[in-house]
Amino acid sequence: MEFKISKNLILELEQHIVNKNDKELEALLNDMHHADIAEILDELDFDEATYIFKVLDSDKTAEILLELEDDLRENILSRLSPKEIAEELDELDTNDAADIIAELSQDLKAEVISELNDVEHAKDIVDLLRYDENSAGGLMGKELVKVNENWNVLTCVKEMRIQAENVSRVHSIYVVDDENRLKGRLSLKDLLTTSTKTQISDIYIRKYNFVNVDTEDVEVARIMQRYDLEAIPVVDEMGRLVGRITIDDIIDVIRDEADQDYQLAAGISKDVEADDSILEHTKARLPWLVLALLGGFISVKVLGLFEGAMLEHGELFFFTPLIAAMAGNVGVQSSAIIVQGLANNTLTGSLFSRLMKEVSLSLLNGFILAIILFIGSHFLLDVEIVIGVIVTTALVSVIIIASLIGTFVPLLLDKFGIDPALATGPFITTSNDICGILIYFSIARIILGF
Amino acid sequence: MEFKISKNLILELEQHIVNKNDKELEALLNDMHHADIAEILDELDFDEATYIFKVLDSDKTAEILLELEDDLRENILSRLSPKEIAEELDELDTNDAADIIAELSQDLKAEVISELNDVEHAKDIVDLLRYDENSAGGLMGKELVKVNENWNVLTCVKEMRIQAENVSRVHSIYVVDDENRLKGRLSLKDLLTTSTKTQISDIYIRKYNFVNVDTEDVEVARIMQRYDLEAIPVVDEMGRLVGRITIDDIIDVIRDEADQDYQLAAGISKDVEADDSILEHTKARLPWLVLALLGGFISVKVLGLFEGAMLEHGELFFFTPLIAAMAGNVGVQSSAIIVQGLANNTLTGSLFSRLMKEVSLSLLNGFILAIILFIGSHFLLDVEIVIGVIVTTALVSVIIIASLIGTFVPLLLDKFGIDPALATGPFITTSNDICGILIYFSIARIILGF
Repeated sequence: MEFKISKNLILELEQHIVNKNDKELEALLNDMHHADIAEILDELDFDEATYIFKVLDSDKTAEILLELEDDLRENILSRLSPKEIAEELDELDTNDAADIIAELSQDLKAEVISELNDVEHAKDIVDLLRYDENSAGGLMGKELVKVNENWNVLTCVKEMRIQAENVSRVHSIYVVDDENRLKGRLSLKDLLTTSTKTQISDIYIRKYNFVNVDTEDVEVARIMQRYDLEAIPVVDEMGRLVGRITIDDIIDVIRDEADQDYQLAAGISKDVEADDSILEHTKARLPWLVLALLGGFISVKVLGLFEGAMLEHGELFFFTPLIAAMAGNVGVQSSAIIVQGLANNTLTGSLFSRLMKEVSLSLLNGFILAIILFIGSHFLLDVEIVIGVIVTTALVSVIIIASLIGTFVPLLLDKFGIDPALATGPFITTSNDICGILIYFSIARIILGF
Repeated sequence: MEFKISKNLILELEQHIVNKNDKELEALLNDMHHADIAEILDELDFDEATYIFKVLDSDKTAEILLELEDDLRENILSRLSPKEIAEELDELDTNDAADIIAELSQDLKAEVISELNDVEHAKDIVDLLRYDENSAGGLMGKELVKVNENWNVLTCVKEMRIQAENVSRVHSIYVVDDENRLKGRLSLKDLLTTSTKTQISDIYIRKYNFVNVDTEDVEVARIMQRYDLEAIPVVDEMGRLVGRITIDDIIDVIRDEADQDYQLAAGISKDVEADDSILEHTKARLPWLVLALLGGFISVKVLGLFEGAMLEHGELFFFTPLIAAMAGNVGVQSSAIIVQGLANNTLTGSLFSRLMKEVSLSLLNGFILAIILFIGSHFLLDVEIVIGVIVTTALVSVIIIASLIGTFVPLLLDKFGIDPALATGPFITTSNDICGILIYFSIARIILGF
C-alpha cells in the first residue's frame, strides 16, 4: 500500500512542466496525499518543483511545504512574496505556521505576519513564536476544543461544533473556568455516551495530565508515553490553558532523540542528514575526528615509552591494534547499554551493583575471548608462549577496565547534567584505546622486564 | 509534573505489607496511575510486589501487568491460577491480552483461554494469537467502531454509542459493506458537524489508508507516520476489516527500531536492557567481540608482513593504533549517515553521486586532519620528516577508503535485504582497522623501500 514514485511519473511531470500543461499537472497530482507530492517535488530540481508548487492550490501546498526537505522549502519560500507566504500560512495549524515563520529572516517575518488574513490566527502564531523550540510552548498548537465548567452539555455540544471546525483532531475536550484556568477534561467517549441534559461540572474529569509552557520537549514525550496520552494540555504560569500538544509532534521528538543518540554514538555531533551539504557534514564530523586524532597522538607517545621492547620483543607491537580495538568495542557496548537505559528510564539498582555486574560480565566474556586468543596466538599466529600469556592477560584486564570506563563515564556525565550519549563513540573508543595500550605494555614490561 | 517515587513511600508500603494493612495499601495506591504503580512494584521485591498486586482491583492490576518489567510479570503470573489470570485478561484490550497470553506456556494458554468470561473477547484474543508478532496482525486490536454503509446517521450514532463502550479511543469510524469489507471511513469531526439525518453512503470518505494483516510492523509505522495517522484499519486477504492499529502501539515499534539500530552500531546483536541477566548480555555482546578478535588476528598477521621495517623504522609501529582508530571512526560516521538515511527514507540521488560526495567530504576532512597530524608529528611527536609524510599520506588515503567502505557496505547490505545497521559498529571498525593498517604500511614500504 505504500507509495512509490515511478521514473515514468517523474518524466511525465517534467514533460508537462516544459509544455506548461497546468491542467494536466493538477489532474495528476490533485488526488495525491501531500506527503507523496512533497516526495515527488524533492526528486525534481528547484525550478521544476517551484513550478508545480505554484500550479497547485494553497490548501494543498501549505501542507506540502511542511513535508519538503529543508533546502527545497527554503528555496521555494525565497521565491514567494510575503503575501503568498501568508496565504500558505493561513491554511496551516498555528504550530506548523509558527515553525515556518521561525525559519524566515527577521524583516520577512514581520511582513509575512502583517499579511496574514485571519487576525486571531495571526495573534496565535505570534504568541507561539516567543517560546523556545525545545519546550512545550514551542511544540504546542493553539487549536483545541474547550468548554466552560458552568455550561450544560447542550451549550457545550453547540460550542464544540463551532470550535471543532478549526481543529483537525479533537482528542480531548478541556474544561476551564471563567478565567480560562484548566480545571479538567471531558473525554470524547463520555460525550458520545452521555445524555445531552447533563451539566458539565457534574461529568468532567478532575484528574488530568498537563505540562507547563516551559517543560522540556523530551520530558513532554516521556509523560505522554508513560501515561499513554494522545494529547496533553499546556498551561502558563498562572494555570491558564494556552495550547495543546498532540502525539504526532511527540513522535518527531522521540525519533529525533533516538537519532541524535545514534549519531553521537557514531561520532557525529550535529543533526545532519545524508543530503545535507558537505560543509554541514564537516562541521558535524570533524570535531570528533580531531579528538580521535589527538587521542592518537597520545597513543603514539604511550607506545614510545615502550620503545625499548622493540629490539627483543617486536612481536608485542603487532598486537597493539587488536588490544586497542577490543578495548574500544567493549567500552562502546557497555556505554550503549547505560545510555539506552538512561534514555528509557530502565536503570534500577545502585552504581556499585551495576559496576559489579559489568565486572562479572567482563570476566565471563574475557575468559571466553582469552581462550580463543591464547589458542589462536599459538596455532594461528605462531608467537612464543610467553607473548601469548602476556597478550591474553592483557586482554582480560583491558576488557574489565574498558567496561568499567564504559559504564562509569555516561553515568557520571548524566549526574552532571551532560548528555551521556556524548560518552559513546569516539570519546570512549579513544580513551579506551589509550588505556588498553598502556595496560598491555605495562603487563608486558612486568613479565618480560624490558 | 512527572511522577517520582520517594524512599519514604517505599518504606511506608513495605511497613503496610508487613502489617498486612490492606486498607491502607489500597488507600495509598488507588488514586495512582497504573504506570506509576508498576514503577513502584518494580522497585519492590517479588513477594512484596505480588502481595500488593493481590490487594488491588483487577481493573487496575490488569493495566499494571502490562507495564511491569518482564521478570516481575513472569513471576507474578506464575503465582496466579489460570482463573485469576483470565480475570486480568478480561479487563484488557484484545491485543494486550493476546500479548500476555503469548508469553504463557502452551498448557497454561489453553487453560487460561477456557477461563475467560466474555466469549466474544476470548474469540478475538484467540484470533489475534495466530498472527506473527512483527506483523500488522500481531499489532492490531479487535476494538474498533464500524458502521454499515447502508445505515443512516441516526442508526449509526446509536450503534456507535454501544460499540464505543468497549473502545477506549474511537479515532475513526470505519464503514463496511454487508460482507464486512472495508469501504471507507467517517471522521469523528464530520460526525460532530453533520446533521443526524444524512445517509452514511452520502458522507463517508472513500479514500482511506489501510494495511494487510501480514504487513510488517516497521512498514505500518512508516505509513502511519508518513500520512500522519493516529489509527489505521487492518484487512485480511479478502479485504474484510479484521482489526485496527493505534499510534501508541506504533510508538513502541518506532522506538524499538531506533534502539535496535543503536545497539547494532554499538556491537550488541540482540535486544537487551541494562537489567537483563549476565547470560543474556553475553549472548548479545560476545558474538561481535569474537568477530573483532578474529579481525584482530588478521591485523596481527598484516603487521607481521612488515616486520622488516621494525629494525630501521620502528617508529612506524607507534602510529598503527592512530591510523586504525581514524579508519574506524571515519567508517562508522559514514555508515551511520547511510543507515539513518535508509531508516528515515531520506536518501535521494544515485550511488555514484553519493560516493563522490563522500570522497569530497573525506578530502576536505582528510586535508584538515593531515595538517594537524603533520604539524603534530613534527613538533609534538618529534618524528623524522619522512615518517611525518608517510603517516600524513596514509591518513588521507585511509580516510577516503574508510568512508567509501562505510558508505558502500550498508547500501550493499540493504540491496540484498539485510539490515544495513549490521554494517555499523564492530564490523565496519574491524574491517577498516585492517584496511587502514595495510594501506599505511604499503605506503611506508613504497616510500622507504624496506
